[in-house]
Amino acid sequence: MNKIKLSSISTDAPKDISKEETKEITKQLLKELDELQNLLYAEHKHSLLVIVQGMDASGKDGLIRKVIGSMNPYGVTIQSYKAPTAEEMDHDFLWRIHRCAPAKGAVQVFNRSHYEDILIQRVHKWIDDKTAQKRMKAINHFEWLLTEHNNTTILKFYLHVSQEEQAARLKERTEDPKKMWKYNAKDLTEAKLWKEYMEMYEDAFENCNDIPWIIVPADRNWYKEYVVAKTLVETLRSLDMEYPVLNK
Amino acid sequence: MNKIKLSSISTDAPKDISKEETKEITKQLLKELDELQNLLYAEHKHSLLVIVQGMDASGKDGLIRKVIGSMNPYGVTIQSYKAPTAEEMDHDFLWRIHRCAPAKGAVQVFNRSHYEDILIQRVHKWIDDKTAQKRMKAINHFEWLLTEHNNTTILKFYLHVSQEEQAARLKERTEDPKKMWKYNAKDLTEAKLWKEYMEMYEDAFENCNDIPWIIVPADRNWYKEYVVAKTLVETLRSLDMEYPVLNK
Repeated sequence: MNKIKLSSISTDAPKDISKEETKEITKQLLKELDELQNLLYAEHKHSLLVIVQGMDASGKDGLIRKVIGSMNPYGVTIQSYKAPTAEEMDHDFLWRIHRCAPAKGAVQVFNRSHYEDILIQRVHKWIDDKTAQKRMKAINHFEWLLTEHNNTTILKFYLHVSQEEQAARLKERTEDPKKMWKYNAKDLTEAKLWKEYMEMYEDAFENCNDIPWIIVPADRNWYKEYVVAKTLVETLRSLDMEYPVLNK
Repeated sequence: MNKIKLSSISTDAPKDISKEETKEITKQLLKELDELQNLLYAEHKHSLLVIVQGMDASGKDGLIRKVIGSMNPYGVTIQSYKAPTAEEMDHDFLWRIHRCAPAKGAVQVFNRSHYEDILIQRVHKWIDDKTAQKRMKAINHFEWLLTEHNNTTILKFYLHVSQEEQAARLKERTEDPKKMWKYNAKDLTEAKLWKEYMEMYEDAFENCNDIPWIIVPADRNWYKEYVVAKTLVETLRSLDMEYPVLNK
């Protein structure tokens, strides 16, 4: 594949698309998504893993609330991956990931994921390039394992915001009383490493693309939600699922 | 590597070795093993995974009791793998294995293992050859992950008994009141599939030998215990471990 250059991909919604109409379509998509998830659960043959990655303030939490939250929480699990605990550090980096892999019939969402082990860890040089290469190889093995050995469909979303939009959102967290709880001084330090993060993301996209990444323009929440909802619905539709018949 | 032909490997102890002397050496080895495990635990850098495979009545339980039991149970965990539960069946076959992978500093023993997924399952034709090949690939990936990503040393023991010795031991279970609890009518059915099992074991040894299998002649318990104790001690010695110094 050609190397993805993030700087050449727009973070904005396309100009020729209407916000109001798109929101209406998204509403319909979310209704269908709810039904499709019910079918996935009932059929108990496939599973869906949704990986959500993106810079701070790229809108991961909002996406999960709005799009994932439209499904029946029974059968949908969200796992947020933060800095590994001491127990997790005593294992290989995929140990804590594998235990949360989706069971048949389930939808599992990762808010951040095993990709952090080749993103933040590389940006801060906590691991060297050789280790990063080894991890990327292990990630490809792991995603193949889930796909080929448990009928799991994996969707990998990168929420693509511009540096300006991120700055605006981080600033808002210092000003809007309803958003202050999200403020973390560390985010500002990380934001300064923008260029390094973009490089590491591009490297991850290049080396871990057996299951392709979906780059979601994310400066406009309504457009981001539409793209993700549409992808989820089209993916689930394509599984050709059926409600099980009664065993008499 | 050359294909292992189990029928050409002796299941008996070598003729020129004294039982009494060997038992004495094993006793010394087990003392050293206890110390080495303490060091492994204290140093907290390496981990050890011991996989024990073998036909019914090949002496897996006895080996674990005698050799593994000589170590401090704190820091040593035994996991027996039986038929998968409904929850486990809803995941890829390595899911239940990975969660029991040893943490740094730990010794983990698998009494049967992920190899059953390409042994009993193939013998009974619950999976086809294509699935078996895919599983063997995944097993090699998985063992590489533990080895390369968490400093785990993996020892894979096959307890090699003769068909005659197995028959004698299974018969004993119907006669010795202290062994009757181990009797399981199914074992006799499985025993009839001896030839098929040997073929599937040989295929596993051939295809999953990145980390080499250790074939242990197991008709004599004292000899089996000696071989395993010696291998464990030599392996742990070779790790060049050191007690951590006091951080002042």
